[in-house]
Amino acid sequence: MRKNAVLSHCILALVVGCVSICVRAQSDPLPSWNDTAPKKEILAFVAKVTAEGAPDFVPVGQRIATFDNDGTLWVEQPMYVQLAFIMDRVKQLAPQHPDWKTTQPFKGVLDGDMKAVAASGEKGLMQLMAATHAGMSVEEFQKIVTEWLGAAQQPKFKRRYPQCVYQPMIELLAYLRANGFKTYIVSGGGVEFMRPWTEKIYGIPPEQVVGSSVKTSFQMIDGKPQLMRLPELNFLDDKEGKPIAINQYIGRRPIAAFGNSDGDQQMLEWTAAGAGPHLMLLVHHTDATREYAYDRQSPFGKLDKALDEANEKGWIVVDMKNDWKVIFPSSQ
Amino acid sequence: MRKNAVLSHCILALVVGCVSICVRAQSDPLPSWNDTAPKKEILAFVAKVTAEGAPDFVPVGQRIATFDNDGTLWVEQPMYVQLAFIMDRVKQLAPQHPDWKTTQPFKGVLDGDMKAVAASGEKGLMQLMAATHAGMSVEEFQKIVTEWLGAAQQPKFKRRYPQCVYQPMIELLAYLRANGFKTYIVSGGGVEFMRPWTEKIYGIPPEQVVGSSVKTSFQMIDGKPQLMRLPELNFLDDKEGKPIAINQYIGRRPIAAFGNSDGDQQMLEWTAAGAGPHLMLLVHHTDATREYAYDRQSPFGKLDKALDEANEKGWIVVDMKNDWKVIFPSSQ
Repeated sequence: MRKNAVLSHCILALVVGCVSICVRAQSDPLPSWNDTAPKKEILAFVAKVTAEGAPDFVPVGQRIATFDNDGTLWVEQPMYVQLAFIMDRVKQLAPQHPDWKTTQPFKGVLDGDMKAVAASGEKGLMQLMAATHAGMSVEEFQKIVTEWLGAAQQPKFKRRYPQCVYQPMIELLAYLRANGFKTYIVSGGGVEFMRPWTEKIYGIPPEQVVGSSVKTSFQMIDGKPQLMRLPELNFLDDKEGKPIAINQYIGRRPIAAFGNSDGDQQMLEWTAAGAGPHLMLLVHHTDATREYAYDRQSPFGKLDKALDEANEKGWIVVDMKNDWKVIFPSSQ
Repeated sequence: MRKNAVLSHCILALVVGCVSICVRAQSDPLPSWNDTAPKKEILAFVAKVTAEGAPDFVPVGQRIATFDNDGTLWVEQPMYVQLAFIMDRVKQLAPQHPDWKTTQPFKGVLDGDMKAVAASGEKGLMQLMAATHAGMSVEEFQKIVTEWLGAAQQPKFKRRYPQCVYQPMIELLAYLRANGFKTYIVSGGGVEFMRPWTEKIYGIPPEQVVGSSVKTSFQMIDGKPQLMRLPELNFLDDKEGKPIAINQYIGRRPIAAFGNSDGDQQMLEWTAAGAGPHLMLLVHHTDATREYAYDRQSPFGKLDKALDEANEKGWIVVDMKNDWKVIFPSSQ
């Protein structure tokens, strides 16, 4: 290209760039949120921490936002998605384990007898974890998870689980990132159960996913190093575990934290105790028609003490029914 | 400003931008490296993984590079810096612990009797760790580390430890980042011992520092949540621990890994077993004049089996004396 042509291309690029920035600035970054208090508070918070020179300005590197996953970013009813995976996996593996027909907690899973499964307690849960989450390499497990998520359906909405994510939260993640935030998942769910799909669905890469984990062992198998998953819990990323994991994995205190249950209470407390500006938000499941309505009595995602603390301290509580225009992405 | 003035400013900005890009492209990104094999191999590797459309192209998000710290990015002789910290800290705290004068391993530290310290074994080391690394909040510990690093001097070079980093590696870190790599530290050293200063010195933010750690406890102290450091090892990030930690913290396999001792062997093996292109490099300390010369017999940073494997498999081995023009940054 001749110099003049290069120059006019550059000018054109500048003009197009300016126009697109202006259009973006005018459009609504959270179109699936009603114009109620939560949306206004979020927009005001982002405006103040990104206003250079203002007293509440936070430099880009310190704009850390942490999100719980189950019940905050995707559906956790009628049971945690990972529990649905465990149950399907037990059924799939059952032909190789004839003793499961007569041994709890496996018998309970195969009979659909959730009371028997629950009665097997923590020991039973660990047995189910060991049978379904261990004994293979990290890569093999990720393949199993990916295949299952590509086939299994959420029973109420008849769509695949990665489509049972909350559209308003997807927009919020993108909006925060567009404003220089680094978005993390900090979930009680298994980290290897999330990493295969969080980048595609949430835009959150593997290295920004913090979760519960099993121990792994580095082994040379046929001269090739493998990380094998062991039937032993490494870390439970729930309640007090969340601020502990945030410090261990991220090494910075979030300035914004998002949850929906008592399992998130300590993460929000840790965020609230930061020196600078901070935002704490709970998603309250109030929409029995479009999703589910549950809180203090729910076996999954119980929201009780954290709701009291939110009300007492003025944390944002999203009333799903009234604050969200839509729940799920429109495409299936 | 009037429109014309805005436009000419834009054009000026563009021209200045283009000129500075051209100058950068022509200048040497690794000026402290001699034009020997290691530099050539690094440049060739980066060129091939960043060439869009070429068979070895690696997308930006997958360009993960992991660096050991002690002996790879900064000095680890005459002892690990963190051990020097422990010894200074024991001396500082000794007046409050009169029993240390007669109890090992503390007596050994106070007398400068390293043989007695070594004889106390792992149990002794854990006692020293507990006395110097636990019993305070995470923030308090970071403050202690920062103050110590601002005052302590490396005995041979008479400069502060954060100035005893390797200038050629600082350039390499910046060069990789300029080419879309995400640079991580994966060190046997304590993660909270590194995070207070790695961003300033290496350009590596806290969330990209993986290291050994003690357990922490989430506690409400005077109504304020605190993460308290406990006298119990949480994770030892060395040897097999390095690939385990890489999977746990990063969740992706590195395409480039840099170390200097047998503690890095498994990290390099894990990197070498990746499906795509990969680069493995060991820093060999061969310069007794400008730094230190040590390998198979050294109590710190022992390089023996990893050197054999590097020679056998063609991993890059940097001969510090011949491959590096300078060792440390010029400013003190």
